[in-house]
Amino acid sequence: MRRKEFTVAEEEEIEQFLSEVSFGFLGLNSEDGFPRVVPLNFAYGNGVFYIHGSRVGEKMERMKEDNRVTFSAAKEYALIPSYFTDEHMACPATAFFKSVTVRGHAELVVELEEKAAAFSIFMSKLQPEGGYDTIDASDPRYASRLKGVALIKIVPDEWTAKFKFGQNVKGQERQQIVDGLQKRGLDDDLATIEMMRKYCPHH
Amino acid sequence: MRRKEFTVAEEEEIEQFLSEVSFGFLGLNSEDGFPRVVPLNFAYGNGVFYIHGSRVGEKMERMKEDNRVTFSAAKEYALIPSYFTDEHMACPATAFFKSVTVRGHAELVVELEEKAAAFSIFMSKLQPEGGYDTIDASDPRYASRLKGVALIKIVPDEWTAKFKFGQNVKGQERQQIVDGLQKRGLDDDLATIEMMRKYCPHH
Repeated sequence: MRRKEFTVAEEEEIEQFLSEVSFGFLGLNSEDGFPRVVPLNFAYGNGVFYIHGSRVGEKMERMKEDNRVTFSAAKEYALIPSYFTDEHMACPATAFFKSVTVRGHAELVVELEEKAAAFSIFMSKLQPEGGYDTIDASDPRYASRLKGVALIKIVPDEWTAKFKFGQNVKGQERQQIVDGLQKRGLDDDLATIEMMRKYCPHH
Repeated sequence: MRRKEFTVAEEEEIEQFLSEVSFGFLGLNSEDGFPRVVPLNFAYGNGVFYIHGSRVGEKMERMKEDNRVTFSAAKEYALIPSYFTDEHMACPATAFFKSVTVRGHAELVVELEEKAAAFSIFMSKLQPEGGYDTIDASDPRYASRLKGVALIKIVPDEWTAKFKFGQNVKGQERQQIVDGLQKRGLDDDLATIEMMRKYCPHH
């Protein structure tokens, strides 16, 4: 696993990001030679990504033959219009975003206790407010359902994280973007300014 | 192109959706046998998907050898908590979303007029408020930049659209979800109710 390219602080930020993004895109090799890309909710925990559901079931036959997969999740924080820094040319238009991509191997989870634990991670992430009975493999109401649902874990071999917040933009242009975001004031614009400061290489 | 599986109304909805989602995920075959998945801004127009930038440039060498690609974009409208319909079991928890996935072939765009037209589509989508000089290949300020940027079009061979809004949910449960969304009132909850009605098979 090439994760050691990240420092501990970055690892924490990656895990934080993965807890905030509810779905990602699974990449698979397909029999006819085309790559496949499937959007899916996911949960990250115990160092692996969990995905589930009938769409996963359909793909599982394929993954038994070729379990090399990629999973990618991204969040766009802000579209940066060209006029923040240039009143004529469209070229500076860009987007600031976070993305995390892993490549690894898909494994079918069969053992009921592990399934129960994985779905508990799913629920804590996607329904943190609770409102359901604890998922327990020894609870017969859950056991039968757990048997019937396809659950896959992706064990990452290699991680790539890209947090793009204008790290290459300097001086006056940088300030113009901050001012533009502040003035525009969309939902994520203030968070974007915070990220620009956090990831600024001169900070 | 297998697009004819969609009716005209659905085609319009797909195009509408593609104009609302600013980024998607490009799937590629890679040399080492793993699928690659890359998040990218995109624009759809003239029946093709356009993607650009240095990240595309890096991948282009690969795409010259194997230009079979998949591109997928999705928007999650609502996480549907289990307790909308079941006060005990976590199982009904789900998500309502739209996704559009195409498989096709990637082609490098070289001709400057086509590049200018494609970037104009990009800008109308991602910066609809304007604020830049018209992108024109005969404008020397733009011509030099257009030469320097990698632009790819994905020509779709096959389309898949999945708009999931509880089409399989009936009667009382359906009403419970509508009531739950109405009461919760998150940003997209009312739009989700509208989509549930629009795509309800019994409507």
